[in-house]
Amino acid sequence: MGRPLRLGIAGLGVVGGGLLTALAQAGPRLQGRFVIAGVSGRDSSLARTVDISPFPWFDDARALAARPEIDVFIELIGGAVGPAKQAVEAALRQGKAVITANKALLAEHGHALLQLCERHGGSLAFEAAVAGGVPVIGGLREGLAGARIDRVSAILNGTSNFILSTMEAQSLDFAAALALAQAKGFAEADPIMDVSGADSRHKLAILCGLAFHCLPDPGSIRMAGIERVTPLDIASARRLGFRIKPVARLERRGARIEASVGPALLPLTHPLAHVDGALNAVLVDAAPIGRLTFSGPGAGAGPTACAVLADLINLLDGAQRPAFGVGAAQLTSVLPVASNAAGRHYLRVQVMDRPGTLAAVSHELGAMGVSIDSFHQDAFSQQRASVPIFLTTQLCQLEALDAAIAAIARLSSTLEPPLSLPIAFDSTPSPEEG
Amino acid sequence: MGRPLRLGIAGLGVVGGGLLTALAQAGPRLQGRFVIAGVSGRDSSLARTVDISPFPWFDDARALAARPEIDVFIELIGGAVGPAKQAVEAALRQGKAVITANKALLAEHGHALLQLCERHGGSLAFEAAVAGGVPVIGGLREGLAGARIDRVSAILNGTSNFILSTMEAQSLDFAAALALAQAKGFAEADPIMDVSGADSRHKLAILCGLAFHCLPDPGSIRMAGIERVTPLDIASARRLGFRIKPVARLERRGARIEASVGPALLPLTHPLAHVDGALNAVLVDAAPIGRLTFSGPGAGAGPTACAVLADLINLLDGAQRPAFGVGAAQLTSVLPVASNAAGRHYLRVQVMDRPGTLAAVSHELGAMGVSIDSFHQDAFSQQRASVPIFLTTQLCQLEALDAAIAAIARLSSTLEPPLSLPIAFDSTPSPEEG
Repeated sequence: MGRPLRLGIAGLGVVGGGLLTALAQAGPRLQGRFVIAGVSGRDSSLARTVDISPFPWFDDARALAARPEIDVFIELIGGAVGPAKQAVEAALRQGKAVITANKALLAEHGHALLQLCERHGGSLAFEAAVAGGVPVIGGLREGLAGARIDRVSAILNGTSNFILSTMEAQSLDFAAALALAQAKGFAEADPIMDVSGADSRHKLAILCGLAFHCLPDPGSIRMAGIERVTPLDIASARRLGFRIKPVARLERRGARIEASVGPALLPLTHPLAHVDGALNAVLVDAAPIGRLTFSGPGAGAGPTACAVLADLINLLDGAQRPAFGVGAAQLTSVLPVASNAAGRHYLRVQVMDRPGTLAAVSHELGAMGVSIDSFHQDAFSQQRASVPIFLTTQLCQLEALDAAIAAIARLSSTLEPPLSLPIAFDSTPSPEEG
Repeated sequence: MGRPLRLGIAGLGVVGGGLLTALAQAGPRLQGRFVIAGVSGRDSSLARTVDISPFPWFDDARALAARPEIDVFIELIGGAVGPAKQAVEAALRQGKAVITANKALLAEHGHALLQLCERHGGSLAFEAAVAGGVPVIGGLREGLAGARIDRVSAILNGTSNFILSTMEAQSLDFAAALALAQAKGFAEADPIMDVSGADSRHKLAILCGLAFHCLPDPGSIRMAGIERVTPLDIASARRLGFRIKPVARLERRGARIEASVGPALLPLTHPLAHVDGALNAVLVDAAPIGRLTFSGPGAGAGPTACAVLADLINLLDGAQRPAFGVGAAQLTSVLPVASNAAGRHYLRVQVMDRPGTLAAVSHELGAMGVSIDSFHQDAFSQQRASVPIFLTTQLCQLEALDAAIAAIARLSSTLEPPLSLPIAFDSTPSPEEG
């Protein structure tokens, strides 16, 4: 088994504390195989649930990362820039093994980090970065290493999922459900990363790297937030046989990849339609397997700590593999975006209740070749001057829809930018599954 | 990356053929990293979908396994005895890496094989042995290596699941649903291993090894088949809010382990209640994570071949870990059975329709301290001389129930041995999850 691995742990918040607890209770796969050679946090004098006094303290995570007495640097600070990035770079420059839960860092700077890693002979592991305790990184990289992945459909942000689930279950609006999520500790004081889709987009970029060996600039992934979804949308979707879920999606379209993050309508028969609360779930359609599902708690101290331990045990077991399954040179960075994918969509247009309004909206859609599949106007709207119109479209090109929506937004009777949500129909595995 | 691994593949049936196809289409993780140095099957002259002429042929799998030009022996023959066992032993005695899909062999002879493996410095991998294409072996051994597993609830046999799903969906009896499963290729000509629960029991023993580091004699796991489940039972369960599913279960009870395989009533809120057709699913309750779900196709050429490739890529990546996560000496073989677990049960008793029958049945239950929770007699039974009585019990000890059932079977009015099925209530993660 060799000598124990010497760990340096930076970031002693909820996850870092959970990791120290988990390490203290280590089972037979870990016992006697590691020592904690240093820790670093914001303030050594903070009251903590775990006693850190036995471990050498470092004020600066970067200094800890570069210390010769550290074999493995565990980064739980977070953030794509600043100390987290500098500390990970310092560790990789020393050829050390790095374990991180930092999806923003990986998504934004993955290529540079992987090159650094290869140049100096280190390693980089990040099971905790996506879906917390659900071993989906290992599942994709090891379990599905021999399969061709065609589609990934996932709920990757527990906060957004909790908010939308709560809006539906308790008939709350977005602000009230967000406040409840914050009160329960499911949302941070500043929820922007979660509700905007940015957190899911970082995670989806990482899954894209594993599934398609393409780690794209997250900015190239189409993104929408959940802030504009209303109880009316949820009720309207329900009437049509759908639930609104925060969906992250990757799909192979020939040599291109469709990638998107945002609220979407899922038919009740879709496996993700029933993943509620703060749960995460990842569906993978792979040939020649079919559809696989991984689900479980996507965040929290315990799940995240267990994911870090999984990486650590893999290190102890001597597994030597590139972080994304292929070398940095084989991992492309340009997402060959399939931007003009055909799909069906849900639209809500808030309009003045006056004659000709519906005709004007329909005209703009028709002008771009977008056919209306169903139409509904809420008869019980309280504020009759402003009424919502709900539409679903037939199959149409995304670019045509975007153009029609822009035109509708410019109509004098339109009171706010229309809300458009994609309708997902991939409730059964793709036909190519073999 | 070193020189290519030289593979010897024994067993060229559906799975072996699928593997050769998958290897021919190998992606970047495999390309140029292996050669097929020999194959063995029943008959070299059989018509096959894959051209085997480029590969050296061996009539005897054991001879192939021991050949010096083979680094990795892949065993897809099947069966706990005979050529499969002898060939795997021959390969392990040469210190080779063995990859197998053979759950019977692992469950029946795992300890001896692991000792052989350790003594000669080889390795043993078996992702394909449980749940086919679903990477649950790696998920438990690597992904959850740092967690404490408390419960595993699973559907591990696609044939049984297909038969029970079809009985319910098409109102067929067992024989008709079995015939349909056979016609569709979901059941073999001799379905005994699948419908008796023996196949699930082999797989559950392997999961027990991974989850609890205890690889028990499969015979020590309580087992029931699905043959005696009737459309009446399915309808009766449905009326009570349950579905009948082929469930394999492990649960930690202090220092003991409850283990069972057989049809069980699941509330409609249970995640396994909606796993239909030939799908497999594994729920794992683990601390400090919560509940994880893995599901997907549990059998077939494609899924099984991909699982074998996952093992092969792990080998190429140099992962050196004991097959069950701990060394053979730490892997116990004696299952500390929690035999007298308390639970609720469903009973069907076929009786003569005469006065006093119900009183006699109730008396036997009461005499053993088993309280009746609900009772139903089918008013529309066609053959009035023989009527089924349906009961559910309150929480009772298994031994008390078994004794009461034996007494009921001896009543003169009882026409056939009562059918008893456990009712599972673990629809939410166990409270210890933390």
